[in-house]
Amino acid sequence: MKPSTSPTPLPHDAEIANFADRLDAAIARKQSCLVVGLDPIEERLPPEIRGASLAAGRGPRGWTARAATAVGLFLERVIDAIAPFAVAVKPNAGFFERFGAVGWECLRRVCEIAHDRELLVILDAKRGDIGSTADAYCEALLGDTPDTVGPLTDALTLNPYLGRDSIEPYLARVRDAGKGLFVLVRTSNPSAREIQELDVGGEPLFVHVARRVAAWSAGLDGTSGLGPVGAVVGATAPGQAVRVRSELPRAMFLVPGYGAQGAGADELRPFFLPGGRGAVVNASRSVLYAFEGGGRDWLAAVADAARRARDDLEAVRRTC
Amino acid sequence: MKPSTSPTPLPHDAEIANFADRLDAAIARKQSCLVVGLDPIEERLPPEIRGASLAAGRGPRGWTARAATAVGLFLERVIDAIAPFAVAVKPNAGFFERFGAVGWECLRRVCEIAHDRELLVILDAKRGDIGSTADAYCEALLGDTPDTVGPLTDALTLNPYLGRDSIEPYLARVRDAGKGLFVLVRTSNPSAREIQELDVGGEPLFVHVARRVAAWSAGLDGTSGLGPVGAVVGATAPGQAVRVRSELPRAMFLVPGYGAQGAGADELRPFFLPGGRGAVVNASRSVLYAFEGGGRDWLAAVADAARRARDDLEAVRRTC
Repeated sequence: MKPSTSPTPLPHDAEIANFADRLDAAIARKQSCLVVGLDPIEERLPPEIRGASLAAGRGPRGWTARAATAVGLFLERVIDAIAPFAVAVKPNAGFFERFGAVGWECLRRVCEIAHDRELLVILDAKRGDIGSTADAYCEALLGDTPDTVGPLTDALTLNPYLGRDSIEPYLARVRDAGKGLFVLVRTSNPSAREIQELDVGGEPLFVHVARRVAAWSAGLDGTSGLGPVGAVVGATAPGQAVRVRSELPRAMFLVPGYGAQGAGADELRPFFLPGGRGAVVNASRSVLYAFEGGGRDWLAAVADAARRARDDLEAVRRTC
Repeated sequence: MKPSTSPTPLPHDAEIANFADRLDAAIARKQSCLVVGLDPIEERLPPEIRGASLAAGRGPRGWTARAATAVGLFLERVIDAIAPFAVAVKPNAGFFERFGAVGWECLRRVCEIAHDRELLVILDAKRGDIGSTADAYCEALLGDTPDTVGPLTDALTLNPYLGRDSIEPYLARVRDAGKGLFVLVRTSNPSAREIQELDVGGEPLFVHVARRVAAWSAGLDGTSGLGPVGAVVGATAPGQAVRVRSELPRAMFLVPGYGAQGAGADELRPFFLPGGRGAVVNASRSVLYAFEGGGRDWLAAVADAARRARDDLEAVRRTC
């Protein structure tokens, strides 16, 4: 199967490329491993988009619809601005869920816009449940039901605490519909070590989790040699990335924590495979709100920030 | 502060009871520790509710609205039928998320119905994220925004893999708005042991997680002596429940796995505190679809199943 450059083949295409192949091809084509995280906060929107009706703050009835509408307008323009520089967007489900039902329609529309701009869509929902509930989340977030986000997403983040039962229900969509998964292995937050680095037989817990991810996803690698069940590994933990990489030598890494959370591009070298393959790096607030404090045209500031992040990351990626 | 019997005081009430006090009082008042899990599957609805328009199966445009409407009608009648026998309902977010935006409005309406029938609402969403994303989920699911589920929920399930950062953002709502949390400690599924029972210094991981939950929630106990940051502990693991209880002697336990997943009431003794306090037990499919295979009036079958589960559990709870 030749890796397709079409970012999101429909589920019933005769030939559906493996997610890892699609992501790998898109990185090569775009010369970018930048993922822009979409964490919309209505209070931080540019004043001309926020509008007077949101200035009074959160609360009154009808606020959710007004806020979700403003967020949709904002993100449509952001996606246009960053599309030349990013390989994917990562909408963060919690930021849309805040607006209730209208937030979910906003999320669906945002995924549709990104899909139309040929950006891959990595839905960051960090779901973790079992059995028929996992089936339900899979149908909701990676499925093929019209009017849901499922047909518009390419990959989903998952939490491994419940074991294989919480990953396996998604694997059919990985195999048959070209979808990808990113399992939380070592996250970027300060308290990540509290559970994830507990000592299990001389090794931190996250190494065991990485080993389980490898077992759960065996046999799914694409023709690129890369695997569609990836790992979330925080940019703030480059030493730990080496350990995860040794357990998951062919998995795609989704790397949060670059930019606003403090990690610089130079620290990202251990996340990549030789040739700069196998990892995408997320920047959210440092791109989305690049206009803050600012003077200039807000959209130009967002585009500039995405371009600079892309260049910054490429300088490292191309020398791996 | 006298424990209120009102199940869901508004956030700005002068006196907001601790969630543990509210749940403890409701168990005593109702003489029931039964939680009915709401896992709606449109294919399993009674034919007269499913209707002809859903018979063709999932897929065509407009299906989500028709399915969510049928699910809403079903659950409204179910909630009326089980209200005398249950202390709470546990809507399972994934089963509503499948219907996209209309599913979230259906979930909100279902929470409103349960709230109106004076049932506590434990939203089973198993969210786990950090920082501003955790704030977003808290606002979405336990917040006070009109038109969202937040004002209608009493408690939320959370995943601990990301550590304190993924629990702390919710504690302000626990303290100030009488909300509760149930953190996944030892789940009921077959692969739970794969991660949760890894050996950490001679003890299974879940014991360490229980200890962290105790640390994260220190100082929040109510006047009942019980704590509002509880633990999910599967009914299929009674031996493990003893270990969790020793780390969390005052926490509320939410116990899934009774009924359809195989555990009988007798096995539940280790989950309760003396006097039969400190635990609620969930039954989902064994109540919700009690009419399957049927003959009788479907709603009478659902009510009967709830009554029998309540009686079955009370026989154990009253002798603890």
